[in-house]
Amino acid sequence: MKKTSQPLADLAAERLVDYIVEHQLETGSRLPNEYVLADILEVGRSTVREAVRRLAARNILEVRQGSGTYISGKKGVADDPLGFTFIKDTTKLTHDLFEIRLLLEPRVAAKAAQYATDQDCLLLEEIVQAIEQSYDEGTEEHVQLDVQLHAQLAKMSGNLALDSLLPVIHQSISLINSDFQGKDLREDSRLAHRRILEAVRDRDSVNAYDAMLRHILAVSASFEMES
Amino acid sequence: MKKTSQPLADLAAERLVDYIVEHQLETGSRLPNEYVLADILEVGRSTVREAVRRLAARNILEVRQGSGTYISGKKGVADDPLGFTFIKDTTKLTHDLFEIRLLLEPRVAAKAAQYATDQDCLLLEEIVQAIEQSYDEGTEEHVQLDVQLHAQLAKMSGNLALDSLLPVIHQSISLINSDFQGKDLREDSRLAHRRILEAVRDRDSVNAYDAMLRHILAVSASFEMES
Repeated sequence: MKKTSQPLADLAAERLVDYIVEHQLETGSRLPNEYVLADILEVGRSTVREAVRRLAARNILEVRQGSGTYISGKKGVADDPLGFTFIKDTTKLTHDLFEIRLLLEPRVAAKAAQYATDQDCLLLEEIVQAIEQSYDEGTEEHVQLDVQLHAQLAKMSGNLALDSLLPVIHQSISLINSDFQGKDLREDSRLAHRRILEAVRDRDSVNAYDAMLRHILAVSASFEMES
Repeated sequence: MKKTSQPLADLAAERLVDYIVEHQLETGSRLPNEYVLADILEVGRSTVREAVRRLAARNILEVRQGSGTYISGKKGVADDPLGFTFIKDTTKLTHDLFEIRLLLEPRVAAKAAQYATDQDCLLLEEIVQAIEQSYDEGTEEHVQLDVQLHAQLAKMSGNLALDSLLPVIHQSISLINSDFQGKDLREDSRLAHRRILEAVRDRDSVNAYDAMLRHILAVSASFEMES
């Protein structure tokens, strides 16, 4: 296997990112083929392949066998982007992730309430209902739906950075604690989600803030007791 | 060039991460050679190479030509881990990053003051002095030193997740706004850093909280005016 030099592939990867940004390529767009890319990036084809692999590892590109290379829908957010895999004390890490949520999410809920469109509210209600259905049917779907609920609020808050960051925090908590059930918490969460939904629907920022604060304190306290 | 199948390399990368975590390999440790890794991961050597490349792209491993593969000091935090490169409105993104800092950092400063050791305080003072020296000599070093100052406070706060996250937020702000000078802000920042340092030294959480809040509001306001 031919060895591609590290720095050249790094440079090619950087140029490819610039190309994507300059051409405003959107999620799902297909990149030009290898020959064309080699021309554009002014490197050999093996370096193009290496650069593509690096950007695929960062979830910026997605290689579909036999079809081509596409802009990934994961928006360049790598799996475990903040390196939490390597923190050994997962109980402490979870506690610390909840502290971040406690600082960020009440304001997220307040802003979501302030900026919500009717369409946003409908989408939020759908997620809340799907979570309740998952509770009722005893499925595990509510875990992912819960991440989705908080991600939707982050999107509604209008803060672009939180829109990228909060799903990472949530996903980390669920991954680290895949055995955490929080069963006793379901009735509590059901009420909390409804309270948040109502406040957003009423465009009531203050109540949305308080409802989210109470919700996160409750989930976090329940985690502390089980661990 | 032999094509390694995607899913197999993914699986091998995942197993390699598990191996690193289980064996508690620390930053700078050298991995076993390719032959041994192929045995451990139960895949061929070309798949080992592919897995190593992926983990290198995620800053988990570092390949040193002619020497071997090492655990990277970047702790698995990829370059631009949250995909900010692809957000086009950089002014809005900067504003949103400051909002995150405003929510997180006053508490970071308060906790840093509460938990500070004498050693921590000395290190903090060294950074503050180096920033002042950079201001005085008109060098650009203060930009990186400022990231370091806030990273040091994050470490002192004891929150493991913030210790990973805050440097990413800071680094993003400096990268996006590499032309932002904030010259008029230097006297202000000089005072603010001294105020934070004093509060931490006095183990005065309340003053540390307030000093940080004022500092971030001032920097953020100055950015808004220049942009």
